[in-house]
Amino acid sequence: MRMKVKEVAKLIDGEVIGDENIVITGVSGIKEAKPGDLTFIANKKYKNLLYTTKASAIIVGRDITNSVNATLIQVDNPSIAFAKIMSFVGPEPIVFPPGIHPTAIIGKNVSLGKDVSIQPYVVIEDYVKIGDKTVIGAGVYIGHYTEIGNECLIYPKVVIRERIKIGNRVIIHPGTVIGGDGFGFATVKGVHHKIPQIGTVEIGDDVEIGSNVTIDRARFDKTYIGNGVKIDNLVQIAHNVYIGDNSIIVAQVGISGSTVIGKNVIIAGQAGIIGHITVGDNSVIGGKAGVTKNVPPNTHVTGFPAREKWEDMRFHAYIRKLPELLEKIKQLEEKIEKLEKKDG
Amino acid sequence: MRMKVKEVAKLIDGEVIGDENIVITGVSGIKEAKPGDLTFIANKKYKNLLYTTKASAIIVGRDITNSVNATLIQVDNPSIAFAKIMSFVGPEPIVFPPGIHPTAIIGKNVSLGKDVSIQPYVVIEDYVKIGDKTVIGAGVYIGHYTEIGNECLIYPKVVIRERIKIGNRVIIHPGTVIGGDGFGFATVKGVHHKIPQIGTVEIGDDVEIGSNVTIDRARFDKTYIGNGVKIDNLVQIAHNVYIGDNSIIVAQVGISGSTVIGKNVIIAGQAGIIGHITVGDNSVIGGKAGVTKNVPPNTHVTGFPAREKWEDMRFHAYIRKLPELLEKIKQLEEKIEKLEKKDG
Amino acid sequence: MRMKVKEVAKLIDGEVIGDENIVITGVSGIKEAKPGDLTFIANKKYKNLLYTTKASAIIVGRDITNSVNATLIQVDNPSIAFAKIMSFVGPEPIVFPPGIHPTAIIGKNVSLGKDVSIQPYVVIEDYVKIGDKTVIGAGVYIGHYTEIGNECLIYPKVVIRERIKIGNRVIIHPGTVIGGDGFGFATVKGVHHKIPQIGTVEIGDDVEIGSNVTIDRARFDKTYIGNGVKIDNLVQIAHNVYIGDNSIIVAQVGISGSTVIGKNVIIAGQAGIIGHITVGDNSVIGGKAGVTKNVPPNTHVTGFPAREKWEDMRFHAYIRKLPELLEKIKQLEEKIEKLEKKDG
Repeated sequence: MRMKVKEVAKLIDGEVIGDENIVITGVSGIKEAKPGDLTFIANKKYKNLLYTTKASAIIVGRDITNSVNATLIQVDNPSIAFAKIMSFVGPEPIVFPPGIHPTAIIGKNVSLGKDVSIQPYVVIEDYVKIGDKTVIGAGVYIGHYTEIGNECLIYPKVVIRERIKIGNRVIIHPGTVIGGDGFGFATVKGVHHKIPQIGTVEIGDDVEIGSNVTIDRARFDKTYIGNGVKIDNLVQIAHNVYIGDNSIIVAQVGISGSTVIGKNVIIAGQAGIIGHITVGDNSVIGGKAGVTKNVPPNTHVTGFPAREKWEDMRFHAYIRKLPELLEKIKQLEEKIEKLEKKDG
Repeated sequence: MRMKVKEVAKLIDGEVIGDENIVITGVSGIKEAKPGDLTFIANKKYKNLLYTTKASAIIVGRDITNSVNATLIQVDNPSIAFAKIMSFVGPEPIVFPPGIHPTAIIGKNVSLGKDVSIQPYVVIEDYVKIGDKTVIGAGVYIGHYTEIGNECLIYPKVVIRERIKIGNRVIIHPGTVIGGDGFGFATVKGVHHKIPQIGTVEIGDDVEIGSNVTIDRARFDKTYIGNGVKIDNLVQIAHNVYIGDNSIIVAQVGISGSTVIGKNVIIAGQAGIIGHITVGDNSVIGGKAGVTKNVPPNTHVTGFPAREKWEDMRFHAYIRKLPELLEKIKQLEEKIEKLEKKDG
Repeated sequence: MRMKVKEVAKLIDGEVIGDENIVITGVSGIKEAKPGDLTFIANKKYKNLLYTTKASAIIVGRDITNSVNATLIQVDNPSIAFAKIMSFVGPEPIVFPPGIHPTAIIGKNVSLGKDVSIQPYVVIEDYVKIGDKTVIGAGVYIGHYTEIGNECLIYPKVVIRERIKIGNRVIIHPGTVIGGDGFGFATVKGVHHKIPQIGTVEIGDDVEIGSNVTIDRARFDKTYIGNGVKIDNLVQIAHNVYIGDNSIIVAQVGISGSTVIGKNVIIAGQAGIIGHITVGDNSVIGGKAGVTKNVPPNTHVTGFPAREKWEDMRFHAYIRKLPELLEKIKQLEEKIEKLEKKDG
């Protein structure tokens, strides 16, 4: 990479504050940046790094107007602007050209869209439908009657079982399993009998699902992942869970059966949510939280059992006061003893 | 689906209370049910839904005798009865007919039972034995000397390494790994030397294992999964763990090395159990619990560090009383001050 | 196995205390040992088992000099000595002979070292480099430009995406995914736009990675796993994480983006570490801990939020005193009431 700051600014509709002729030779995070690097600040939390970074130029929001050494490029959304530059300077993305590899095994009555790319050792069962420009990575398995939309990118070794519906522009990372049986048994005299899981999984448009995720099929009806939902690695989504549009589920989260997650919810890493409850729109579940009851909309809960964040913080504050409390009680005891003696 | 309630009742040996001529057109959960739907109640916890559901008929236990609008069908076990109806009305299950796909690679001295189904791109190493009617899904890898019983269903992309023994009627969902090396190192001057894991994994009859589970082989002897055990997705079972018959392990649980789990134990989601301990028969480990010492039989533990449920609840009750406590101590201080003044 | 104790001792440079002519017929853990078995004690925590084990001989450290019944074999490092015996008596390890299976699909400009073993249904994309004596297991996928060193063992169904660098003598267990996209989005008006993840993953020498692990590629620059690091099953390592040499990461741990882990750190099972922090060299993170801020070197933290272990233990001790505290306050109230009455 070798570009002047003013050229960078042009690409991202940015306004330059400082020397617009500095030459940028790389991109990097603000902490790791070296002279010559372009970096960015998206979160005001890291604002003080403006004064310590060695970067030569920083993409910032419109409200940031000065730094110590670096030239600033003001834009509406620094993350998106930086992403644009990154795709510009990054290595050529790997492209899988259209075509069906001769080793792919494709069942009867399969409908393949225009310009699909079916990589080696893919197995596609009967009656599958795949939309235009979708890429099916090496060794993927797609079960009977499953439908996948347009422009999807299914990475190697993904397993999508039968009768699943997946929308358009969905990305699924390697090793993920969609449509495994829900975990349901009827126990008679200590023996667990399998309950058939005759439902399915339906995934909306623009969903991204990480690596080695598991999304179970419904007992009946469907497990549902709304449009624009983003799911990180190693997440467990049980049967009949419903996730509203644009929610974000971070790594290693587990959501139990039949729970309903609203829209624009954020569930941080390793949180767990019990079954048959509702998490309202725009709520935030803290990392490692254990959610045991309904969460209203627009609520931030943390801890286990999860409660509202302010309540959880107060709880921890009280706990921290315990040593002091013990000391006080000891003093009170002594005072009372004195009073009792005098009184006696 | 289109059946009269009396026809449904006949299939499941049920007794009808209400109009037996109502026509059922679908099945569904009790909360989501619409008019025309058949549903069920297995857990008395949800009994009040009898009065709000829109279902036309409800399968219930023998002890439930009235609802608001729906016809009841009384049976011995509502879950099992409903499961029966579900397999009746659900879509045709996908069946993998017997036969060996020409792309399957099968080693020397492999013994295949009658009517096995070996799907595309399976790799079976030398000296493997597979029982009658077992299905080996697409892309499965089975290591040397491994034995799998009759009527098993091994889903795509499962990896079963060498010298593993698996019983009859075992179901293993996609992406699961059986027999990876136990995690064991001997550290000399900060460098970790691998300890050979020469043991194996033995899995009993009627076991079901979810997707992307990992069950490690033993250091010596074996990791053991008893008959009828059911394991959910993304569970970690370390080397030399022993799990007694009919225990249930919910998603994302981790069990550390050499721990012994009794029979009929239930371990809820995201719980973790340290190594070298024993969990007694019929015990229950709560969701997200962290078990740090032996759990006696018939004991329900929760929290981290896990203690008996009543104790953990009392602990949380005390915590909730802390603000009140602080208030009280303040009052006592004031009273004593007054007394001291008078006294002085 | 059938060896005299003196023959065993010779193999591991051990000194015999007791009857050196006893015949050893098996190896086993100290708790499970039967007469005829050889076992070992590596951790003094289990020292009292010396007096209850049924083993005929025990490999011990130089400082242990007596037991009840068993003959002792003193060595410098009992774990390593026992491991040596185990590889001696264990079944022949499975060896994958050099050669390229005819079903392997190998791209253009791929460089393969001497004596590599490429198993069935492997897919290797263009410009990949693989070092001498490395084994690529059945069904593995290796993306464009990726480089793998010498004497590595990549188990079946592993996915290594493009532009990854892996050192020498690295072991990767089945189902693991290296180089999936980091989880990064820029949100504009509630819609999450994907941020390109143009970085890579670099893995040092002598690393071992368990089954179904996920290690994400960096947003830019690299996610880094140092030499000698050992990672257990189902671990999540996010984009731009840095792990120092010889650290140990136990099962189901999650490390969030851009966090730096020092050298010789131990992170126990199911712990979670937030992003953008530093864990110092030689520190220990307890099982299930939730680390929310920097951890200095040589520090043992536990709990959630994680604090120093002594502090966390004191915290739990205070909590245990709460019932007693409530009782005391009640008594004080009564005493004060009495005093007030007298006083009045």
